[in-house]
Amino acid sequence: MKALATLINAPRLEKRIEELAEIGKIEINGVSRLAHSSKDKEAVLKVQKWMEEAGLETRIDHFGNLIGRLNGEKPNEPILMVGSHIDSQPYGGRFDGVIGVLGAIEVIQTMGEQNTIPFRPIEVVAFSDEEGCRFNKGLFGVRGLLGRLEKGELDRTDKNGVSRREALIEFGCDPERFKESEYDHSTIGSFIELHIEQGPVLEVAGESIGIVTGISGPLWLTVKLKGLAGHAGSVPMHMRQDALLGAAKVIVKLNELVSENNSAPTVGTVGSLEVFPDSRNIIPEEVTFTVDLRDINEERRNQIEEKLRREIAQIAEENNLIYEITEDTRNEPRYCSEEIINIMRAESMKMKLNTPELMSGPFHDSLAMSYVCDYGMIFVRSKGGISHNPKEYSSIEDISLGTELLYRTVTKMVSKNQ
Amino acid sequence: MKALATLINAPRLEKRIEELAEIGKIEINGVSRLAHSSKDKEAVLKVQKWMEEAGLETRIDHFGNLIGRLNGEKPNEPILMVGSHIDSQPYGGRFDGVIGVLGAIEVIQTMGEQNTIPFRPIEVVAFSDEEGCRFNKGLFGVRGLLGRLEKGELDRTDKNGVSRREALIEFGCDPERFKESEYDHSTIGSFIELHIEQGPVLEVAGESIGIVTGISGPLWLTVKLKGLAGHAGSVPMHMRQDALLGAAKVIVKLNELVSENNSAPTVGTVGSLEVFPDSRNIIPEEVTFTVDLRDINEERRNQIEEKLRREIAQIAEENNLIYEITEDTRNEPRYCSEEIINIMRAESMKMKLNTPELMSGPFHDSLAMSYVCDYGMIFVRSKGGISHNPKEYSSIEDISLGTELLYRTVTKMVSKNQ
Repeated sequence: MKALATLINAPRLEKRIEELAEIGKIEINGVSRLAHSSKDKEAVLKVQKWMEEAGLETRIDHFGNLIGRLNGEKPNEPILMVGSHIDSQPYGGRFDGVIGVLGAIEVIQTMGEQNTIPFRPIEVVAFSDEEGCRFNKGLFGVRGLLGRLEKGELDRTDKNGVSRREALIEFGCDPERFKESEYDHSTIGSFIELHIEQGPVLEVAGESIGIVTGISGPLWLTVKLKGLAGHAGSVPMHMRQDALLGAAKVIVKLNELVSENNSAPTVGTVGSLEVFPDSRNIIPEEVTFTVDLRDINEERRNQIEEKLRREIAQIAEENNLIYEITEDTRNEPRYCSEEIINIMRAESMKMKLNTPELMSGPFHDSLAMSYVCDYGMIFVRSKGGISHNPKEYSSIEDISLGTELLYRTVTKMVSKNQ
Repeated sequence: MKALATLINAPRLEKRIEELAEIGKIEINGVSRLAHSSKDKEAVLKVQKWMEEAGLETRIDHFGNLIGRLNGEKPNEPILMVGSHIDSQPYGGRFDGVIGVLGAIEVIQTMGEQNTIPFRPIEVVAFSDEEGCRFNKGLFGVRGLLGRLEKGELDRTDKNGVSRREALIEFGCDPERFKESEYDHSTIGSFIELHIEQGPVLEVAGESIGIVTGISGPLWLTVKLKGLAGHAGSVPMHMRQDALLGAAKVIVKLNELVSENNSAPTVGTVGSLEVFPDSRNIIPEEVTFTVDLRDINEERRNQIEEKLRREIAQIAEENNLIYEITEDTRNEPRYCSEEIINIMRAESMKMKLNTPELMSGPFHDSLAMSYVCDYGMIFVRSKGGISHNPKEYSSIEDISLGTELLYRTVTKMVSKNQ
């Protein structure tokens, strides 16, 4: 741990992370706590107990969210929400989401120990089902609380045929009473989330924590190229309509386009690709592949998309292929509040930390919150950039520094002058 | 049909092709006659009848080969073998192999009608199981006849668990008596095969038939590239180890290498490719793909292979990937006899035909024969280059011209002065 002593209680925080990891434990360091499951409920009840120890007034709402409230001096002022989630991937790690919830509880407990009474109310939230892997639709709790569920969401079923409605009732929620759990957006002032990075930027920079500038929602395309099959031995090169050659050229070109500007955080990925008929001595007739394009700057992303579409058209023409592009998802980037970033910058400087500023590729509960209030995020270094895997790891030293910056940021934001 | 009248009887040939296509007929123009099956037997018996009509003395050997013999003036001179196969792919066409057998019978029948008595013996052969799709090993009959079966071949089983041995016995063969059906190689003088092209070269050239210069056996490699998975949104471009990007660069480079020399018939194909974990928002960790490289000039193929291996090493290094190359098959090109090619050239000139000379990518019964005697091949134009499919099509005009050239070539080769 760096020389600086933290006000937050690192051993207490570490003990809670370890204790929570016992629920749904898999392998040595992993956890498997699917949303609304009995393990999830067990974890929620344990965290609720810690919230109460920290002095929060708790409740579990009808979406399965666990909420702990500290009224502060002026209970009717807009709420500062702090939190994340404690559900996990089926083969997940113990830090993803968890440090944002336990870190927030640690912040409140430390404030109590420091006799700090917030000017406005603080609510610590463990949102339900952020991961979305059980019903193939994430950010459930936060969208529920904001009144933003979509039609039919309760009828989605998991692999065993259990519907979301049934799972919620089993968990102890009453879907008939959702309305009672929804917030009037004007009552929410800001949202802060501490989370593991899930990428390698901080590790490579050699820094414990970073300040997030925004979440770059992805543009998802599916590209299909169609040529003509033929015997690999009997069709001369210049007569071919090889769909895989076309796809390869597009993949190389996409990489060039997103790498052109070294200083931009643009990323572009072809993660999935399928060849038909996929036989070693037949020229590929059809290739389908995905494109994932992200940038914190939407205009730059749009420009790259446009260039990519032109390149696909040209490559298809030059290689005698037919092409088809389907748009699957188009999320806009959501920027963090400059005001909150400024507080984090100033506080981390006081902590003598060098905190890189980086965008988040993955989404978080913050993404849903960004549509109703200002938000800010702190990232903690991930070993090897790995997450959604039992190998996910962040050191308690790094988590403590992230929690300390969270503590300082929250304290600033709930002081009377803020 | 071109103005030139053929000596061979085109309507008779056409009628036989149509009649044979009724056995195992699928869809409008396709056939399905798996090796050693009852349909195959039915076809063999029908063709045997035509052989006898043509004046051949017939037998079915213990490998399932149908052989028709014409002794000629000097029965102890080396045999001129002519033929191909009549078994088909499960979802095949009516011309592949068939025109080489029925064309050869037409040649013999025409010789009889022209009162031509060959100086040396001619044998027309319908080799069994050229396709190899039933027991996943082709050129069975021709290799059997040449004493070149491998250990364990009789124990190979088809999808229904029937072994080659059982299938042969069912067909009427006796595997215990293979030896009786083997040839002393010195008794075979030459081999000639008429076959559909299975590629688009003649169609694009606008010519009915072509002279084959050789069969370019493939070099088959499997390339595995291994990088590191990571979230498509959180790993900056310069930190990636993207196995699919590496594979795409290799595919583009292979295409450049084989296309460099426009006048060479080199072909290179990546027909099969697999991505792991194949998820749209995860950077590909591992990609495995095949390389099929062919050239009638083995040295040139070796040079391209060497360049490709260097490029793979360099691309792997530049993209931080580990690579592994497995060699699955390395067949050498087998050249047709210059002497036979010269006869075909001269005869096609007399026929006022422009006959392109081209290599064969796919293998044929000729490939096995090439190891024991001189051989020559004539290709007939394939519509759209399609084969191994009910859409396979060659016109009777083109087939007749190919058969006429076969007739002229055979007649020349069995004349006393040859």
